[in-house]
Amino acid sequence: MDLFEKIASNRGPLGSHSHYAHGYFTFPKLEGEIKPRMIFRGKEVLTWSLNNYLGLANHPEVRKADAEAAAEWGMAMPMGARIMSGNSNLHEQLEAELADFIKKPDVLLLNFGYQGVVSIIDALVNRHDVIVYDAESHACIIDGVRLHQGKRFVYPHNDMESLEKQLQRAKRMTDETGGGILVITEGVFGMSGNMGNLKGVIALKEKYEFRLFVDDAHGFGTMGATGAGTGEEQGVQDGIDLYFSTFAKSMASIGAFVGGPESVIEYLRYNMRSQIFAKSLPMPLVVGALKRLELLRTKPELKENLWTVVRALQSGLREKGFNIGTTESPVTPVFLNGEIPDATQITFDLRENHGIFCSIVVYPVVPKGVIMLRLIPTASHTLEDVRETIVAFETVAEKLDKGLYSKTQVPA
Amino acid sequence: MDLFEKIASNRGPLGSHSHYAHGYFTFPKLEGEIKPRMIFRGKEVLTWSLNNYLGLANHPEVRKADAEAAAEWGMAMPMGARIMSGNSNLHEQLEAELADFIKKPDVLLLNFGYQGVVSIIDALVNRHDVIVYDAESHACIIDGVRLHQGKRFVYPHNDMESLEKQLQRAKRMTDETGGGILVITEGVFGMSGNMGNLKGVIALKEKYEFRLFVDDAHGFGTMGATGAGTGEEQGVQDGIDLYFSTFAKSMASIGAFVGGPESVIEYLRYNMRSQIFAKSLPMPLVVGALKRLELLRTKPELKENLWTVVRALQSGLREKGFNIGTTESPVTPVFLNGEIPDATQITFDLRENHGIFCSIVVYPVVPKGVIMLRLIPTASHTLEDVRETIVAFETVAEKLDKGLYSKTQVPA
Repeated sequence: MDLFEKIASNRGPLGSHSHYAHGYFTFPKLEGEIKPRMIFRGKEVLTWSLNNYLGLANHPEVRKADAEAAAEWGMAMPMGARIMSGNSNLHEQLEAELADFIKKPDVLLLNFGYQGVVSIIDALVNRHDVIVYDAESHACIIDGVRLHQGKRFVYPHNDMESLEKQLQRAKRMTDETGGGILVITEGVFGMSGNMGNLKGVIALKEKYEFRLFVDDAHGFGTMGATGAGTGEEQGVQDGIDLYFSTFAKSMASIGAFVGGPESVIEYLRYNMRSQIFAKSLPMPLVVGALKRLELLRTKPELKENLWTVVRALQSGLREKGFNIGTTESPVTPVFLNGEIPDATQITFDLRENHGIFCSIVVYPVVPKGVIMLRLIPTASHTLEDVRETIVAFETVAEKLDKGLYSKTQVPA
Repeated sequence: MDLFEKIASNRGPLGSHSHYAHGYFTFPKLEGEIKPRMIFRGKEVLTWSLNNYLGLANHPEVRKADAEAAAEWGMAMPMGARIMSGNSNLHEQLEAELADFIKKPDVLLLNFGYQGVVSIIDALVNRHDVIVYDAESHACIIDGVRLHQGKRFVYPHNDMESLEKQLQRAKRMTDETGGGILVITEGVFGMSGNMGNLKGVIALKEKYEFRLFVDDAHGFGTMGATGAGTGEEQGVQDGIDLYFSTFAKSMASIGAFVGGPESVIEYLRYNMRSQIFAKSLPMPLVVGALKRLELLRTKPELKENLWTVVRALQSGLREKGFNIGTTESPVTPVFLNGEIPDATQITFDLRENHGIFCSIVVYPVVPKGVIMLRLIPTASHTLEDVRETIVAFETVAEKLDKGLYSKTQVPA
């Protein structure tokens, strides 16, 4: 069969909606500076869909640092892979400052988070090793696990009993192969907003020999007393063997890093395929990350503002009877009962009639019959933004309860 | 066994050299603006190791565009994945201009080349399909193929007879499974510098039904009458079903794109995991790519300068008896006979005594007993740079022939 014919007839779970969704529900354009009020299709909307947790994206000092760094270095510098011709003092300085902040002996900077995670996993294990991972892990973890040629065992999200069973299986397996065990989970899960049970996982180290890799994309900058992440929040940073975060959320940029013991970080430096065979993080992103890290460390009021907004939003929604699931982080899902047509109409109603822009998540990410509206509060939102949003959600939920959405049409 | 103990005792092919190589042979720092003369460890060196083919990295118009774009947008914009909240008119404009330039109906912009290629391959095939690929394909292609759950057949680099045999096997296989065939090769191979035999591959379409994906990282901007790449060079652009290039070489940036039929590009837009689940290309990189593409299209003198330097360097080296293999592109490998200790001493001699900085490639990338020095000429190099380099290479080759390197020591 022709490969392209197959593709023509099978568009994938998201692609099958593209004919009506494109440009509105998918690939929307938010214009203007990154802040709570942005422009969508010519109208101002109150935006709850950007992972700009600390409000750094449009912070004057960040904007100044970004502009100056690009003027000084250009976007091309350095050319080449880090190992070949793409290293600099500033790359090393950022690594040292990150290591100091997350309290790990060494850090490796990564040119992009997604391929970084894939290659970390790929570099750490061979076919004799076993991976045990949380079922709700992000796509980049899943892709890394998919590259693994040995056994992989999955445990239901945060289910410590099942994890222990999988560790027992993994131990039997590695006793035979002579391999090791890598456990993978996340600090904060980006859809539900709840934390990985790092404390529970790490407690199992007393009974089983394994190493723990944690992707803390949503926890870095938002969790823990100093913002050093979910390990700090749960008081178990030392038990995390390899700590990863992207710069795409709190740090409002791209790029990523992984921290851990010097010898393991050096091993990763020399063995990660996506880093050895691809270009180094451009200098303005390195300089920009240094500034963002400085603000993250020295301006605790950013995280305090974030949590003030988070608490107001989450308790406000709960008081009005909304189901926001099990979130323990700024990620705020709102679960409604309904089908995909309801979901599109709710999103449309929120955007057009209430001026509220949030992301909508449907099957297959959540079960059929469930609609998830995901709100991402930031330090830049106000309590007035929260009030306005809760009022809008009440109106929408009432209409949904009355079955009014199924009768309306979404204009194309 | 403890995973980290395993790592402590097995450092990998490159990692096992880190104790003496780090900071000099690996992870060197080239300082100053990106141009032929840069600073390495405080001394000026003539640099031949940056894929800045057209000299755009430090072109005044590029530097101006990069600076202005970062000042206008900051590096955070847009936040979020393209499909969720990371789309913009400028992303779409760049896609349209690239499509127009490479003469493909549609283009999809990618947040990074490496994970882009991995996910393109992953999205195109399922376990019923068969991948047939060139043995010298780049690591990102190999990683994409590694994700594939169906059969994959490899053919020796550019061996059309073997390719045909693999296509016959693939046809038998897909006749059974009902799947399709994806052939993957490169436009210009980054190590040898020779071209993928695209014409030969495409000729086989008369006998076999398959789709062709070409990674033209080194060919885009350097090959073809207009710089549209290796498909244009060989007069077979229409036979390439999916054309990919990174921005990391001629475009002197990061990011990438893939072009092809509208329906397939739309499918990729909605089904590439590294794009759906990771952040969009930042705006300053999009704006910077628009400027680079404009210069690439409107300043043919850049490519002419490049080829003047390439021809002088390659014919000069050949005249002096150097083995530069089968290159047909600016990539200029110089093959010498020697072991890794010779290679390190030659590199040291070139850098310290001749002020020449080039990359060195040893086993396992080339066979044992072979040293490859790789020179990357750019439009910014001069004929005087070429003369100086050939003289240095002659001196070095003479010393190598006389066995003088094995007797000297490289200071740490």
